[in-house]
Amino acid sequence: MSALAAIAASSPQILSINIGAVGYGLAAIGPGVGIGLVFGHAIEAMARQPEASGRISLYMWIGFALTEALALIGLVAPFIFKYS
Amino acid sequence: MSALAAIAASSPQILSINIGAVGYGLAAIGPGVGIGLVFGHAIEAMARQPEASGRISLYMWIGFALTEALALIGLVAPFIFKYS
Amino acid sequence: MSALAAIAASSPQILSINIGAVGYGLAAIGPGVGIGLVFGHAIEAMARQPEASGRISLYMWIGFALTEALALIGLVAPFIFKYS
Amino acid sequence: MSALAAIAASSPQILSINIGAVGYGLAAIGPGVGIGLVFGHAIEAMARQPEASGRISLYMWIGFALTEALALIGLVAPFIFKYS
Amino acid sequence: MSALAAIAASSPQILSINIGAVGYGLAAIGPGVGIGLVFGHAIEAMARQPEASGRISLYMWIGFALTEALALIGLVAPFIFKYS
Repeated sequence: MSALAAIAASSPQILSINIGAVGYGLAAIGPGVGIGLVFGHAIEAMARQPEASGRISLYMWIGFALTEALALIGLVAPFIFKYS
Repeated sequence: MSALAAIAASSPQILSINIGAVGYGLAAIGPGVGIGLVFGHAIEAMARQPEASGRISLYMWIGFALTEALALIGLVAPFIFKYS
Repeated sequence: MSALAAIAASSPQILSINIGAVGYGLAAIGPGVGIGLVFGHAIEAMARQPEASGRISLYMWIGFALTEALALIGLVAPFIFKYS
Repeated sequence: MSALAAIAASSPQILSINIGAVGYGLAAIGPGVGIGLVFGHAIEAMARQPEASGRISLYMWIGFALTEALALIGLVAPFIFKYS
Repeated sequence: MSALAAIAASSPQILSINIGAVGYGLAAIGPGVGIGLVFGHAIEAMARQPEASGRISLYMWIGFALTEALALIGLVAPFIFKYS
């Protein structure tokens, strides 16, 4: 009887759910780079045109929220797949 | 009898579906970077040409939607493959 | 008898098809970044030369379609390999 | 007797071919980014020098074809390895 | 009796938690690049407009914190999945 079997015998959902941690890890790679791109470009634009700070920060927050959403979907995806 | 077998014996779709969480995680990497690129460039363009904000934000939303679509296809792909 | 064997014995196509979800996830990484690059550069070019919007949007859509094609091939690849 | 052995015993080509879908997925990552880079830079160059559109689009299509080839080779690679 | 089985027999949650370490490792890839992008752009902007250092460093720290958050969520994700 292997180790995974021992885990599965006691609580089968532990194994399947922890694969979700790997799924979240993968889903966080892209948004991590994407949020950096949004903030990086926004900082540079704000330094060059300080008078446009209002519109820049508006779209910066929209871009941040929409990029972050991809990672948060990755966090709930195991539950979506589990109860479907 | 191994652990995966124990899971498969009780509920075969748990294992196959949770691999879908890994699939979504992979599919979210690219759009995460891509949406960051779209918003980053749009922010910088908007700061430089505030008078072109209308056309820029139009294409920004189109670009965001078409990039996001790739991740959402990744979210439904396990169901596509399951019921086909 | 292992778990994968138990799945394969009951329904062999479940296992082989769900690996296709992982395949799509991998195939969507690149186009996700690529579409973001195409739209990001097109937005910036359109903001700088508004009079060239016609040619820019023409090549933007061509670039988007050809990049998206790679992800859609990844979506049908499991079926190509299955029925060949 | 392992699971993969059980699958291989019943239908040997299912397993080897579906791993090919994962292989295509991996092969499509790079070209997806690469085609985006080719079109993104071509669009920006075309907007800046409209009089050089002829040479730019010539090299754009060459660059696209040579980049796309990598993904298409990934699509036929499983068949190459199967019948060789 | 294999080594993993020995670990699982004594404390089953050790194995499932260590898969979470792989998940965190994946989740740290993207923010690692993203934080580099934020600081890189901020440094360049600060060198060009030294008089805008105040606003630049403000958004630099906000961008750093929001990008870092993705990696920290990856650190607690295994516990989220474990007790849910």
